[in-house]
Amino acid sequence: MDMEKVNSMDFGEFVDVFGNVIERCPLIAAAVWSQRPFSDLEDLEKHFFALIDALPQSGQEGILRCHPDLAGRELQRGTLTAESQREQSGAGLTSLGADERLRLAELNAQYRARFGFPFVLAARLTDPAAMPRELARRLHCPPAQELRTALGEVKKIGHLRLADLLCVDPSGP
Amino acid sequence: MDMEKVNSMDFGEFVDVFGNVIERCPLIAAAVWSQRPFSDLEDLEKHFFALIDALPQSGQEGILRCHPDLAGRELQRGTLTAESQREQSGAGLTSLGADERLRLAELNAQYRARFGFPFVLAARLTDPAAMPRELARRLHCPPAQELRTALGEVKKIGHLRLADLLCVDPSGP
Repeated sequence: MDMEKVNSMDFGEFVDVFGNVIERCPLIAAAVWSQRPFSDLEDLEKHFFALIDALPQSGQEGILRCHPDLAGRELQRGTLTAESQREQSGAGLTSLGADERLRLAELNAQYRARFGFPFVLAARLTDPAAMPRELARRLHCPPAQELRTALGEVKKIGHLRLADLLCVDPSGP
Repeated sequence: MDMEKVNSMDFGEFVDVFGNVIERCPLIAAAVWSQRPFSDLEDLEKHFFALIDALPQSGQEGILRCHPDLAGRELQRGTLTAESQREQSGAGLTSLGADERLRLAELNAQYRARFGFPFVLAARLTDPAAMPRELARRLHCPPAQELRTALGEVKKIGHLRLADLLCVDPSGP
């Protein structure tokens, strides 16, 4: 999809296409449409990220709370969004053994209890064997730092999703 | 549902229950959870409305863009959210004649083209016969004033939805 096509979309089409760039937060795409026209992927994602940064802290935590657990119940039940399903399957999370799933579930529960939002990680960029280790490490970070780290992961996920939609190489020009 | 029950919810339950108080914007409920405990309906809705007011203008327009048209294609197709379906049916919009539907569709299209968001109205509080007149009137308002009016309607809808969920009289104590 080229930017001319993107810039010609009405807000309904734009939200249909980009509504899940930020997981289950079509409001963000619906807001970004106000900033058209966009020159390229970098320009478009700049507006997604600027809106996330402009939210009050509760709103930023809200974005994280709209994300599913990694290897959680929704993956088992098949109720993830198409994008999350693809990312979690692609990262090998559908083929975890029962022990690994249980270990992740315990760590996810501890993380949610500590921070009040789920553990968010750009699964496509992470070796699945490293995930429980990374979760255990972030579990001990100070809350303000962890909020920043988690929002950074939201942006990595958004970057990859936008690159997919625009059929460009996510590693840039 | 009493406030003790609401205040005991984890964020997943809270978003399941209150995620559509603001139409198709679970992010808002997910953010509001940060502000618990809540004392009553008035306190709870105060946090929903404060977050809307704290958004940059593009975010406020984004909320409006997550709303469906009144008597639009989604009502015909049955793809509205349960709340919108109930509200639009209850307001008599499922039994409009073809002429009235066409008139509303034309006005909706003019409104979207002028403001960049759909016409939002608390259908439960409005006589259906008055809707095209109200739409035609608001179509000529200055954009900044119309944004405020439309967000006021979002809050009226949110108030009624919260009152339903908490089983309290929406007209207050």
